[in-house]
Amino acid sequence: MTSDPPRGRRGRPRDASLDVRVLEAARQLLVERGFEATTVQAIAERSAVHASAIYRRWPSRIEIIEQAVFPGLAPVTVRPTGDLPRDLRRFIRAYAATMAGPAARAAVPGLLAVYQSTGRANAAQTWFAVSARPQFLDILQAAPPGGVDPAVDPDDVFDTLLGCVLARTLIPTVAQRNRPLERLVDICLRLLLPVTMDVRA
Amino acid sequence: MTSDPPRGRRGRPRDASLDVRVLEAARQLLVERGFEATTVQAIAERSAVHASAIYRRWPSRIEIIEQAVFPGLAPVTVRPTGDLPRDLRRFIRAYAATMAGPAARAAVPGLLAVYQSTGRANAAQTWFAVSARPQFLDILQAAPPGGVDPAVDPDDVFDTLLGCVLARTLIPTVAQRNRPLERLVDICLRLLLPVTMDVRA
Repeated sequence: MTSDPPRGRRGRPRDASLDVRVLEAARQLLVERGFEATTVQAIAERSAVHASAIYRRWPSRIEIIEQAVFPGLAPVTVRPTGDLPRDLRRFIRAYAATMAGPAARAAVPGLLAVYQSTGRANAAQTWFAVSARPQFLDILQAAPPGGVDPAVDPDDVFDTLLGCVLARTLIPTVAQRNRPLERLVDICLRLLLPVTMDVRA
Repeated sequence: MTSDPPRGRRGRPRDASLDVRVLEAARQLLVERGFEATTVQAIAERSAVHASAIYRRWPSRIEIIEQAVFPGLAPVTVRPTGDLPRDLRRFIRAYAATMAGPAARAAVPGLLAVYQSTGRANAAQTWFAVSARPQFLDILQAAPPGGVDPAVDPDDVFDTLLGCVLARTLIPTVAQRNRPLERLVDICLRLLLPVTMDVRA
């Protein structure tokens, strides 16, 4: 409905409203009928977009589901301020909220199963695992000099955060402890800030 | 084959070899045919144990799968020595090895999907999420006085470890980084040891 539609990867005008309808249909199906039932055919019926048009945009239902449930963490794409605790808190809230939504909860176990069975090379290119890492690293980059322990690998801290969010979202005994998100901020800060450890033998 | 077999929950003599055959059949099916195909019927056929005998022992295939892939972390049931880094290292190696086996890799995404759909109350009683926590807490208890920061919640550290192991096992971009397990030991120690944090604004 726009007068100047964005162009698709084949250089033809691309109707962005089709993308929105397809992704919304995928989210609805995930919540109502689950991961396995969220097929391209079901998405086509629900969105009233022809399957051939869907396949022109996405190679399979997996990429649709990934894009539908992890839509780029928009709330944290704002620039980091350099205030590390504040930036981390904002990032972690947005990240955890994305993972805890009903469509993501329905999708993630199924995606994890697919990643195990299709081999890692393909899966590593997926949206899921890479989406928020650069934003996290940007936040650390923006911290004042000496604000982050140079002995710490920032990717290790991101992997830890990813695992913590996954566990709080998907594992009942962790979810039931219902710990405030602020604990996750504390854990990340403890891993990132320069410290003097007191090891007693 | 023992002269004094253990008694089942209905007070009758229980043939432990049936349990072993059922659990081994479940592990084989998980690796060969995947989570969905690991049904009670398939387990009965593979193990040559009648389905009715299986249902006398387990309420559903889910409990069989949990017991089959998380058999109690036997290697770490040895008593903690009080040497926190050494005990943690031994625990983390055993825990990560349990989760990374082919049967567990095939089972965990499916179990996570079931936990989302069956409600948390049941799922929280499952083997999966609770099995190793008491052993982890025992290790911290055995540390010398002052060896663990009293401000730290040990359950938070266990949840973090659980999430990290889950992420390294199941998420391709984390698995591909192929970080040594020693980094997980470092992360746990950094969260547990008394520290002085150097916050620079």
